Amino acid sequence: MLIQPGKLLAQIETPDDLRKLDPSELYQVCTELRQYIIDTVSVYGGHFGASLGVVELTVALHYVFNTPYDQLVWDVGHQAYGHKILTGRRKVFHTNRMYGGISGFPKRKESPYDTFGVGHSSTSISAALGMAVASAYKNEKDRQHVAIIGDGSMTAGMAFEAMNHAGVSDTNLLIVLNDNCMAIDPNVGALKDYLTDITTSRLYNKAKDEVWNTLGKISKFGKNAQEIVSKIENAIKAALLQQSNLFESLNLRYFGPIDGHDIDHLVSVMQDLRDIPGPKILHCVTVKGKGYAPAEKEQTKWHAPGLFDKVTGEIRKKVYDKPQPPKYQDVFGNTILELAEQNDKIYGITPAMPSGSSLNIMMKAMPHRAIDVGIAEQHAVTFSAGLATQGLIPFCNIYSSFMQRAYDQVIHDAAIQELPVIFCLDRAGFAGADGPTHHGAYDIAYMRCIPNMIVFSPMNEQELRNIMYTVQLPDFKNHKSSITIRYPRGEGVMADWKTPFEKMEIGKGRKIQDGEEVAIVTIGHIGNYVTKATELLVEEGIKPAHYDMRFAKPLDKVMLHEIFSNYSKVITVEDGCLMGGFGSAVLEFMADHDYHAQLKRLGIPDRVVEHGEQIELHRECGFDPEGIAKAVKAMIALELKI
Amino acid sequence: MLIQPGKLLAQIETPDDLRKLDPSELYQVCTELRQYIIDTVSVYGGHFGASLGVVELTVALHYVFNTPYDQLVWDVGHQAYGHKILTGRRKVFHTNRMYGGISGFPKRKESPYDTFGVGHSSTSISAALGMAVASAYKNEKDRQHVAIIGDGSMTAGMAFEAMNHAGVSDTNLLIVLNDNCMAIDPNVGALKDYLTDITTSRLYNKAKDEVWNTLGKISKFGKNAQEIVSKIENAIKAALLQQSNLFESLNLRYFGPIDGHDIDHLVSVMQDLRDIPGPKILHCVTVKGKGYAPAEKEQTKWHAPGLFDKVTGEIRKKVYDKPQPPKYQDVFGNTILELAEQNDKIYGITPAMPSGSSLNIMMKAMPHRAIDVGIAEQHAVTFSAGLATQGLIPFCNIYSSFMQRAYDQVIHDAAIQELPVIFCLDRAGFAGADGPTHHGAYDIAYMRCIPNMIVFSPMNEQELRNIMYTVQLPDFKNHKSSITIRYPRGEGVMADWKTPFEKMEIGKGRKIQDGEEVAIVTIGHIGNYVTKATELLVEEGIKPAHYDMRFAKPLDKVMLHEIFSNYSKVITVEDGCLMGGFGSAVLEFMADHDYHAQLKRLGIPDRVVEHGEQIELHRECGFDPEGIAKAVKAMIALELKI
Repeated sequence: MLIQPGKLLAQIETPDDLRKLDPSELYQVCTELRQYIIDTVSVYGGHFGASLGVVELTVALHYVFNTPYDQLVWDVGHQAYGHKILTGRRKVFHTNRMYGGISGFPKRKESPYDTFGVGHSSTSISAALGMAVASAYKNEKDRQHVAIIGDGSMTAGMAFEAMNHAGVSDTNLLIVLNDNCMAIDPNVGALKDYLTDITTSRLYNKAKDEVWNTLGKISKFGKNAQEIVSKIENAIKAALLQQSNLFESLNLRYFGPIDGHDIDHLVSVMQDLRDIPGPKILHCVTVKGKGYAPAEKEQTKWHAPGLFDKVTGEIRKKVYDKPQPPKYQDVFGNTILELAEQNDKIYGITPAMPSGSSLNIMMKAMPHRAIDVGIAEQHAVTFSAGLATQGLIPFCNIYSSFMQRAYDQVIHDAAIQELPVIFCLDRAGFAGADGPTHHGAYDIAYMRCIPNMIVFSPMNEQELRNIMYTVQLPDFKNHKSSITIRYPRGEGVMADWKTPFEKMEIGKGRKIQDGEEVAIVTIGHIGNYVTKATELLVEEGIKPAHYDMRFAKPLDKVMLHEIFSNYSKVITVEDGCLMGGFGSAVLEFMADHDYHAQLKRLGIPDRVVEHGEQIELHRECGFDPEGIAKAVKAMIALELKI
Repeated sequence: MLIQPGKLLAQIETPDDLRKLDPSELYQVCTELRQYIIDTVSVYGGHFGASLGVVELTVALHYVFNTPYDQLVWDVGHQAYGHKILTGRRKVFHTNRMYGGISGFPKRKESPYDTFGVGHSSTSISAALGMAVASAYKNEKDRQHVAIIGDGSMTAGMAFEAMNHAGVSDTNLLIVLNDNCMAIDPNVGALKDYLTDITTSRLYNKAKDEVWNTLGKISKFGKNAQEIVSKIENAIKAALLQQSNLFESLNLRYFGPIDGHDIDHLVSVMQDLRDIPGPKILHCVTVKGKGYAPAEKEQTKWHAPGLFDKVTGEIRKKVYDKPQPPKYQDVFGNTILELAEQNDKIYGITPAMPSGSSLNIMMKAMPHRAIDVGIAEQHAVTFSAGLATQGLIPFCNIYSSFMQRAYDQVIHDAAIQELPVIFCLDRAGFAGADGPTHHGAYDIAYMRCIPNMIVFSPMNEQELRNIMYTVQLPDFKNHKSSITIRYPRGEGVMADWKTPFEKMEIGKGRKIQDGEEVAIVTIGHIGNYVTKATELLVEEGIKPAHYDMRFAKPLDKVMLHEIFSNYSKVITVEDGCLMGGFGSAVLEFMADHDYHAQLKRLGIPDRVVEHGEQIELHRECGFDPEGIAKAVKAMIALELKI
């Protein structure tokens, strides 16, 4: 289905075309751009509300600034669809997030207008400041650098680190604060309250009251009181907003708040700011989902709604004729609540992903024991460690790739202190359409090298439930370890998933099937592919053994001794990086125990794997069911050359 | 040498004893505590200036708060010597930082007064908030939680993340901001300027000026003008300090600034604050090195001066009769300047470690191209990536264990974007006396699993110089990779180190010596131990081969094929973790190429290794020269059991 652009949008191949238009035409461009996003996303899918919310900002930025010479850095990048459409990618925009298509995020390889690859939050100010410092060094005095960052992203520490540096730099840096009170879920924390305070003038009103109270006690004003008071109020307002604002505290000139949907005002303000040297911040108030009523109303739901009927606002759902397995995240969300109802020591912690992690289930039922700390992975981990010091049992749920943000805290604050913090890593393995920034590819490698860290991955819903049950039992703390529980995006395999809890033994795997010649050793959900691979192989008279190791650390040594005593050909399969991953752990065991089997590791290769459906990426990397079957046959054909 | 405490200090075994004293005696306690620190550190070594600066804070906190029920969390922990001395560890304090002795940082295993293990900066607010939330949940309404954090630590993002959460929590959390304008080096950035502004009332004066200017234009005041103005000024001051302060913006009640060396005032203020519920911050201005004149004067030098004559202030230096090898950090510091003088694209970046990394050499010569961004590893990395997008060549120098703070940025902002950022990881391997929080144990494992990341470690000064030369040549960017250059704390091996630059081949190792039966394959400086091990073995007629791999990634496959074609017994040695480290990379090569040698990996085992001299720790872990020799003999004795 070809999406038709409006009349003006059809003329815009690049921002140069946009900049030829009269300012009076920009309102119409915004309307058409918004419609184009609605038309495309409703049919082809993708992120939605964020891009609708910055339509006017996007048009204004490209209209005022001389892109790509002037450099825009979009934070996160969910919201850059309009930017992509205006910068030469309208005609391929329907391939957005598809295998082989364009990325859902700005990406340096894709366009010179994409100055910095993004995906994770809060990097934009640092990156733009790097560019701005480089321009200053090259004496490019007219060159402008703009970071566009949401209020949600602003809560992450690295944004603060960057502002602390930017404030003492003498660079052409403009920070556009896109304040819509939302991350994916509603934004939380003191900063959000502060921004709301500014926007609603509560802060100013408080100060004004104080002056009134003071002046009220002075009776000698006479008839000019009103005039004097008014002038004093203005002076205080100026002092408050210009000298004592949080951002001004960091030596960033603060402008705003202004309406982020008033295209004329945006253009005029940005034109003024372009000529003001030095680091500065423009506070724009926007509405996520702007211009599409259902998305304005239910902002979390419409962050990435999937396909929908743009007329009725009905989100299309697949219909099944029998019960389907749940998403792993929902198994987590329901199970933590189930356990917390029985164990009052359990806490749930999420950094700004209540809906993405399904912790929102517990947040609704137990708001005091399920906490969203904002986009703040570092704090989430150390805060959890703090809870653990007091005997509480924190389940800290962070997407695998976002956990990279808190790596030091995992080591320094949890593991080396032997604190029993439970890290639940959702989106482990390939994230799918979100692509390389979101792939949870490295977690087995980066977690298993940490002392006092158990690394577990469930092959199905039952294993996830049982490990969650196990780690909240009192004797888990005897392990003096933290634990990583990694599971993938998407559905499990058990429609009837709500199994009774059973205690698991830490470091104990399970044999799924005996076999001949070759043993396949897997970790996690990807092990389910082996069943399908075996079906393919049986036709050729091949029957590999299959072991579900469950734990990448500690390894089940008893089971590994059994495997290497019985098989001289072994294949490991993991949905994680081959460098230093689970397969390497098995190699270490072999070397330590002087086994010399032939071992083939299947997993994510040492290169950046782009976006696509998970199965497409598994296939590309050779560990889909066919790939596994192929590896078994190749292994059988291999002669031992010792 | 036994250090004698003063009369009052001698009576204090625990804070209970301190709390029995009359307030009037606290000044004397401070004097004696300060003297005890001077007496001990001058003879036994350790960190110095930071603890002197918080003597009064330490005494006041333990006097006012009911420790350990009330919980103190010291940020970083360099400054906690006074705390240790007052909490039962005076008599073992002379073993501070020594092998088998007490830790130089607060440590949970050591004392119930050490509520949270620290070492890295900026964790204290998160941890204390976790404790405070747990207390609130347990309904321990009287229990207090205090994070003591420096202004340097306050610049790191996670402190901000924690305040954003704390500001909306209803907890008994007190943040004591120990503002001494210093990290190890002078603190930098906009926040520091802001704190100075508050302290010197510059902010208030600006606002006052504005009011004067306004009122100056109003001529109708008459004789009461002075009184009115004065009242208005007070109102504005209140508004500014209480409602618009940066910390108040985050909904933390702000108190101060107060003199952090006035023990009486500190006690009285803390007593008041103890009774004020909710999250709050007390801004204390202190002097690092307070009470010891040389330390007050040269604060960076006296951060950890080594042994010194406490009377003359002369720092003891070892005297050698011939030139000694330089520290690796100085090779880095001198070499980057040397290269930057020839290549104007080179930038140097450090997160608050100018002296620790020796980047201060370049900062002095080229202040605009060598940048201290504050304690902000995340920003340092992404800022460097931003510079790299513009064709500049950033050398981003971060201690190995601190690099854990910026792991996501290394992956997300540098490596997967194929940006040629040069990461120089100082203090790789065992950090020595600083202990487990500072050991650079995991970097090979956590770096080599990242695509587009080269991992190199020099065996000597020449290799460090040559790799630095190589990566700034124009053709390095053809590798489309970032690079990690890891080197240890301490001295190299070449007194005559300033060798002419030679280009290195990426991924190329070198054979050091042929041998018989066993090949030893090493990475980095630890390879020098093999020379000594070989000397030990030669006496027994054993001569192992030795290969310096230089690159943990990409591996030198040609050399590895040579090794495994010629040797069936191989030992790998690395100053890094065995889980997923360099030895595992060699195992992966073996498996991928169907080699079946016997392989023994020497390196850091999968447990927390405590503090001590580097050689003591190498010995403990079995890879000192004797350990390596022993492993060779054991390997020779081993029969191949295939």
